[in-house]
Amino acid sequence: MKARIGVGIIGFGTVGTGVAKILLENAALIRRRVGVPVDLVRIADLDVTRDRGITLPAGLLTTDAKHVIHDPSVDVVVELIGGYEAAKRVILDAIAAGKHVVTANKALLALHGEELFDAAARKGVELAFEASVGGGIPVIRALTEGLAGNTIQSIYGIINGTSNYILSRMTQEGQSFEAVLKDAQQAGYAEADPTFDVAGIDSAHKLAILVSLAYGTPVNFKEIYTEGITHITATDIAYAKEFGFTIKLLGIAKLVDGEVEARVHPTMLPSGSPIAEVGGVYNAIQLVGDAVGDVVLYGRGAGSLPTGSAVVSDVIAIGRNILAGAVGRVPAASFQQDQRRPLRMKPMEEISSLYYLRFMVVDRPGVLAQIAGELGRCGISISSMLQQGRREGQTVPVVIKTHMAQERDVQTALREINRKPFISEPTALIRVEGKDE
Amino acid sequence: MKARIGVGIIGFGTVGTGVAKILLENAALIRRRVGVPVDLVRIADLDVTRDRGITLPAGLLTTDAKHVIHDPSVDVVVELIGGYEAAKRVILDAIAAGKHVVTANKALLALHGEELFDAAARKGVELAFEASVGGGIPVIRALTEGLAGNTIQSIYGIINGTSNYILSRMTQEGQSFEAVLKDAQQAGYAEADPTFDVAGIDSAHKLAILVSLAYGTPVNFKEIYTEGITHITATDIAYAKEFGFTIKLLGIAKLVDGEVEARVHPTMLPSGSPIAEVGGVYNAIQLVGDAVGDVVLYGRGAGSLPTGSAVVSDVIAIGRNILAGAVGRVPAASFQQDQRRPLRMKPMEEISSLYYLRFMVVDRPGVLAQIAGELGRCGISISSMLQQGRREGQTVPVVIKTHMAQERDVQTALREINRKPFISEPTALIRVEGKDE
Repeated sequence: MKARIGVGIIGFGTVGTGVAKILLENAALIRRRVGVPVDLVRIADLDVTRDRGITLPAGLLTTDAKHVIHDPSVDVVVELIGGYEAAKRVILDAIAAGKHVVTANKALLALHGEELFDAAARKGVELAFEASVGGGIPVIRALTEGLAGNTIQSIYGIINGTSNYILSRMTQEGQSFEAVLKDAQQAGYAEADPTFDVAGIDSAHKLAILVSLAYGTPVNFKEIYTEGITHITATDIAYAKEFGFTIKLLGIAKLVDGEVEARVHPTMLPSGSPIAEVGGVYNAIQLVGDAVGDVVLYGRGAGSLPTGSAVVSDVIAIGRNILAGAVGRVPAASFQQDQRRPLRMKPMEEISSLYYLRFMVVDRPGVLAQIAGELGRCGISISSMLQQGRREGQTVPVVIKTHMAQERDVQTALREINRKPFISEPTALIRVEGKDE
Repeated sequence: MKARIGVGIIGFGTVGTGVAKILLENAALIRRRVGVPVDLVRIADLDVTRDRGITLPAGLLTTDAKHVIHDPSVDVVVELIGGYEAAKRVILDAIAAGKHVVTANKALLALHGEELFDAAARKGVELAFEASVGGGIPVIRALTEGLAGNTIQSIYGIINGTSNYILSRMTQEGQSFEAVLKDAQQAGYAEADPTFDVAGIDSAHKLAILVSLAYGTPVNFKEIYTEGITHITATDIAYAKEFGFTIKLLGIAKLVDGEVEARVHPTMLPSGSPIAEVGGVYNAIQLVGDAVGDVVLYGRGAGSLPTGSAVVSDVIAIGRNILAGAVGRVPAASFQQDQRRPLRMKPMEEISSLYYLRFMVVDRPGVLAQIAGELGRCGISISSMLQQGRREGQTVPVVIKTHMAQERDVQTALREINRKPFISEPTALIRVEGKDE
């Protein structure tokens, strides 16, 4: 039996520092769980001088990733440099050198996961990525192990803390997206360029990973419909409240007739539902299995120690596998590599949903009838309609909630309606999850 | 490599039926995950004729548990007969026969877990029990794997669906415990003899298991302070609301200065906190780790298919271990068997908490002063006090919330106060979790 497990970190930023802290501070505990020491033996980062608030044993730091990858005492390489090309190079080099790999790199996995899964499987090493979705929340393990006996019927994930923070503050304070974003940037909750977060791209990366594991299918990232929160207004949040809904940026996946829906967009959720009240930078993922029903996992979706916790859980799992001689016990992609089957991803226009539509109309008789008529012609039926305040000749909002309708029909109807002379700005559309009543 | 994993079930009741359904209906999916078929090959139950709404392959059923245990095609024995003696016999016999064991039997694990852990470790077989706590919620895996790098600082669990259902309805409807219990019994949410559930014993069994896994310590079940919900009144629930609290039956564990607190009792939680809104028969467990912060797992805590889902996840994990030659990869007790250390369990009188106290007093001048004086003499300071309605000479409630105080001091003060002539009934005490403010 191996006398210890050696860990090397490449990328010593926020998460890398968290991983190092946990491995050092909880070394005794981890040893009691694993049976042998899990030692941090090497760290590579271009910046080896910055004070990260952590005291490392001498000689650990190097500026050269190759020193980590080819160090014979390193069993597990932790890739935390982020981005695409360099990270991919590091992971493939580590795999080629026979090292097991842990990564938190959701963007890379979403776009190049298949290549990495294949490389790891061919080389017979582990590739683990619990930290890639939901920070410290053990959601990858829930899909691959805890709910492994279930057909996953659907997934609803609040998986981007920045967007959730912004929407939560907009909801609490009635402020605009722009105002809250500025605040969030100053407070460090949003990046200088927040596009990845607020445009839904980060959520889509994470959803791609969840879909791949839940359904045993490769995912073409481009097929995930992705819409962010930049167009959400205080007005729509106020209407949502009035209808008893909360607006969340969700990653949604559903298995429908053997095909997969996968989409990221702002969604109205009934205010009492399990993930509707998840606020601030927290993440939550609701998994619905055919046997287990709904399970919700909630926790910190980002941050040095929470994300570090997930990385360390992977390191421990791999350590246990190494000691038990059980590498590949659970395949990286959750299903056996030769048992994965490409499922058709439904194009967005084929999905069905409930819809919230806010029309900005010049208030005059007959306008409602024309809107309702156009919706009806497209086969969309209305479950409720709200027009507050009458101001003849002025612009007023007309809000409509639909029964279950097909996206294609809704888009067709909106194209027609947006063309009408009484419409003063493009109609707001937010999809609604919940019972059709 | 083994061509298939054989599963035998002993005890074909509610959960056994769920397990059989999942193994049969999701056989193809499970095979794609595990790599070989996971086949249900034998079921033992005294009643082999009852219609359980499931079509079994011919020849599966037997009335004799030994036929399961000694069937050479059975790799994993699933014990679902419940209770102590017979279940223990089945598990020890199965272990002795070299079979891996999955059980949902929390009562047995809480009282005889050490003996079972030892027997499994000595024989080199797996003993798994995800279904023993939180039904379908993968909380055992979260402790043993997902958060394995964390020192667990505290655990707060709503882990008894019957009690939660009763408290939820009392809270919504303002009804008495007795009235709701009767309803719950008629609706099948509570047993004819509900003692295990409403007296907190079932929660204490589950807490014992969580503590053992979280802290790597054997647990003497008798050392878990256990108080049920039978004394909770509509009055206290109404006051809780007024203070912004919800009353839940919680299993609480904390690591304090290297010692463990483990206790089950009704607890007031701030209404906005993550598990305060968990209603009905749902379970939720909040785990607080030093790295990950708080993680909440939520789902169905009981029922045929949800509990079956957890059992099947264990069967799959064991199947994967068998195929990888990795039996014992994660020890049953989460820590290496020789690395477990008995931690001192704090006696209840040593714990510190916030307290809600409701005194029923004859309303006359000077009474409040005497109560406050007695509390002060015992070193207990008051954070708020409420006396609604004045009815000179009649009995009225006086409600006090304390700052952090020691249980021993509170009990001493109450003994003194309950003896006073102006006290008309024993004082109600409910512990409060939350910030001391």
